[in-house]
Amino acid sequence: MTISEIVKDILSKAEIKNIFFVACGGSRAACWPAKFFLETEAKHMATTLFTSNEFVHATPVSCNDHSIVVACSLRGTPETVEALRVGRERGAYTVAFTGDPAFLGDPDYALARAGKYMVPYRNSDKLSCLEGNSVKLFQFAVELLHQAEGYSGYQDVQKGLTVLDDVIAAARQKAGPLAQKFVNAYERKDTIYVIGSGPSFGTAYAFSICSLMEISWIHSPTVHAGEYFHGPFETTGPDLPVLLLKNEGATRALDERADRFLAQYDGGHQVLDAQELCMDAIPEKVRGYFNGFVLGSVLSDYLNLLGKARRHDRSVRRYMWQVAY
Amino acid sequence: MTISEIVKDILSKAEIKNIFFVACGGSRAACWPAKFFLETEAKHMATTLFTSNEFVHATPVSCNDHSIVVACSLRGTPETVEALRVGRERGAYTVAFTGDPAFLGDPDYALARAGKYMVPYRNSDKLSCLEGNSVKLFQFAVELLHQAEGYSGYQDVQKGLTVLDDVIAAARQKAGPLAQKFVNAYERKDTIYVIGSGPSFGTAYAFSICSLMEISWIHSPTVHAGEYFHGPFETTGPDLPVLLLKNEGATRALDERADRFLAQYDGGHQVLDAQELCMDAIPEKVRGYFNGFVLGSVLSDYLNLLGKARRHDRSVRRYMWQVAY
Repeated sequence: MTISEIVKDILSKAEIKNIFFVACGGSRAACWPAKFFLETEAKHMATTLFTSNEFVHATPVSCNDHSIVVACSLRGTPETVEALRVGRERGAYTVAFTGDPAFLGDPDYALARAGKYMVPYRNSDKLSCLEGNSVKLFQFAVELLHQAEGYSGYQDVQKGLTVLDDVIAAARQKAGPLAQKFVNAYERKDTIYVIGSGPSFGTAYAFSICSLMEISWIHSPTVHAGEYFHGPFETTGPDLPVLLLKNEGATRALDERADRFLAQYDGGHQVLDAQELCMDAIPEKVRGYFNGFVLGSVLSDYLNLLGKARRHDRSVRRYMWQVAY
Repeated sequence: MTISEIVKDILSKAEIKNIFFVACGGSRAACWPAKFFLETEAKHMATTLFTSNEFVHATPVSCNDHSIVVACSLRGTPETVEALRVGRERGAYTVAFTGDPAFLGDPDYALARAGKYMVPYRNSDKLSCLEGNSVKLFQFAVELLHQAEGYSGYQDVQKGLTVLDDVIAAARQKAGPLAQKFVNAYERKDTIYVIGSGPSFGTAYAFSICSLMEISWIHSPTVHAGEYFHGPFETTGPDLPVLLLKNEGATRALDERADRFLAQYDGGHQVLDAQELCMDAIPEKVRGYFNGFVLGSVLSDYLNLLGKARRHDRSVRRYMWQVAY
């Protein structure tokens, strides 16, 4: 079934009142654009994003046969499989976004078997981003809103998706020197802050916990640009390593405020600005929802360059997939 | 009006479909127990917690005359005042939790004037915790759920509140040596991770961004115990400074898993375990919702001891209240 058919099938059976996204780590971050979109645009449906094991152990009373539980995991993370099973037990409609077994995914289909519906995905810098988890989750969210409530930006989103690969290719080209500048400045640092907001807060979180902490073994507080001024900014000083993601769209004002402060009191902070990343081809009305895809793709190049500079291969792990945990 | 009367008044006028908590930094963290409670227990009401300025710039479509916007700020943080104004403009019922002007609060009543209803509070280690923002916000959430949907744990929560000050006093006494151990181990560290989950994730966040980053100028990634294994654990090694908060209740399994891993691969991590903090007097059915109040009060002593050891007065700031931002 296509994403559109899955949504249609669910809505033919129930009035949906809430959507729970359940996933871990990078997969959880991949849910962010979908979650942010629904949280902002839905009139009648509530949206929550859980790390899977919290959903398992503190399942909301409101998860029932008017709910959709959307789970995402490349290779069937056990607690994500369990979260989907719990959702199904509660009577919710369960959708498994999981790695295509033909492409580095889960050969056991563990997550797919736990869910009623399945959407396979393939994440790779070398494939269209439309094949990846984050865009597919977003498409699901947009389809759901459009079919359930009607969404006036629906056609604009489709236009945006059509040009997204080209936008990303141009953005990566344009940001190449910025990535090199970031790496030159920070390759020897042991702590790097990442600041984001709104649609790209999930991207900031993913860069912190996956690219920096997991893959590069660099400490990384993730700071919301709106929260920065209510605590975290007190550690700022000349040349504190900070990567600031600036959104195109609604919450840009928050990012700009952080940028102004950092320009005055840090001076060495690095800025990745979505407004400089060739996003004009995406219709303005919905452009903000695409921040995460564009910034995230560019940051993948940051990570690759950082790994080369630190001579730290991005596949090396101390614990993940190496020991029992 | 009492909290109960405010809830009654709102429910006499509208069927409430969603609650938005809007606040910044420590005040945002103070909303966590209320937010976690409603998110877990409410059948028909959706709950979201925003940092105020994101609510201002990316206001959800679903905020309308079936909504409550609950704002919290000691002294009328401008973006929190603005968030409440935006909520009111959308037709939402607005409730301002703000510092009692007679007690270190906002003499201008800026937040109170922006809201339809007002709940004054007084935060101090020397007063009953029932006077503070976090418990009052939680009481509001419990009243709302009970009056709107009926809540079977309502009487148990009241019993818990009755004994809470005694529990906290006993917990602080008992945790004194742990606080000293934490300070002895970490007073010279420049990075301390804080791990929490479920009801106490807000407490972990507050300790990171307020106690460590803002007040002590120590870098501090906040890590969810469920997310720890999906990225952040890769920086763990012998003697990485980590403070792990262990909950009493639903998500304890997540905290225990992190504890086991840290015991094996860190060894120097510090544990603050709510199960050791005299919470037995709180009825078991609702005990989990009290984790944040008990852990948070104990951590205030951690902060005081840390400040003394580092000769860093907890009132000193570089930027907050010192410069324009």
